[in-house]
Amino acid sequence: MKSVKLYEMKKVEIIVRGEDLDFVLDLLDRAGATGYTIIHNLSGKGSHGFHEGHLLFNEEDTLVMVISVMPENLVEAVLEGITPFLNKHSGVVFVSSVMVSRVGKFGDVPTKADGGT
Amino acid sequence: MKSVKLYEMKKVEIIVRGEDLDFVLDLLDRAGATGYTIIHNLSGKGSHGFHEGHLLFNEEDTLVMVISVMPENLVEAVLEGITPFLNKHSGVVFVSSVMVSRVGKFGDVPTKADGGT
Amino acid sequence: MKSVKLYEMKKVEIIVRGEDLDFVLDLLDRAGATGYTIIHNLSGKGSHGFHEGHLLFNEEDTLVMVISVMPENLVEAVLEGITPFLNKHSGVVFVSSVMVSRVGKFGDVPTKADGGT
Repeated sequence: MKSVKLYEMKKVEIIVRGEDLDFVLDLLDRAGATGYTIIHNLSGKGSHGFHEGHLLFNEEDTLVMVISVMPENLVEAVLEGITPFLNKHSGVVFVSSVMVSRVGKFGDVPTKADGGT
Repeated sequence: MKSVKLYEMKKVEIIVRGEDLDFVLDLLDRAGATGYTIIHNLSGKGSHGFHEGHLLFNEEDTLVMVISVMPENLVEAVLEGITPFLNKHSGVVFVSSVMVSRVGKFGDVPTKADGGT
Repeated sequence: MKSVKLYEMKKVEIIVRGEDLDFVLDLLDRAGATGYTIIHNLSGKGSHGFHEGHLLFNEEDTLVMVISVMPENLVEAVLEGITPFLNKHSGVVFVSSVMVSRVGKFGDVPTKADGGT
């Protein structure tokens, strides 16, 4: 039985300082991502970049993770917006593949299931 | 050195309103998933479905994410239970592949490591 | 336009009781992982292992999830450290693939982008 159709989308996870949350949400909005979930009150630690050697996060920072699932064609706009930001601010971004059962919730992407010829 | 064996499992992540948590946990239990983790007090925003155009979540909603790792053969039962629910209630579900080091914690699935012929 | 280079890394997610957090952070540090993020105050439930039949977590436990993104060559050291621990303590670990835009934040791994011959 295959009653639930699955579609491949990209999950973008962005961890930044709480004070930078609005920048991330605005960026997702401008890139065309239609939804996001926020996990609050994270903590973390890490080194920052190749050369600098200073801390990515202080252990006292309050961090947030923003999770947004989107069609692959939106990911590059998000990365092009977030990468220069992360060169100056603390944070990380990672992208992975997920399957979703209803593509309509995550943006308007044409799929084979739409019956295109 | 390969002292730790890894097995591929599916990670199902379900984000719903806090008031719908019990429905999700009961569904996972009936599908045969043997464990889950809950992240509380998320927030989020998104549009709901293809046609409706109303909000997936209000920004004031308190959301929860339920993470459950299970053998692939259990995923369809979970999706068949959750998808009709998400047609009427706010929420999203996504499925991805993860490797786990001990399959026994995530349900009773036959594997080559069990020595099946 | 391909202005943002992506690299494949491994995301290791470890869920343990809050009291075991220091063990996990120390293990990541000794394995050479350069950063992590902690999600606090999770709850969960699950059965423990093949034979034991006792609870993985009690519903009253306060759990933490540690997320660490690292080069693949560090994963085995983490798993070799955490697996014996999880044979005696409650917890789970799973590993998945993620793409990151700047490998330098997650440890010192040679890549083609470094211009190695």
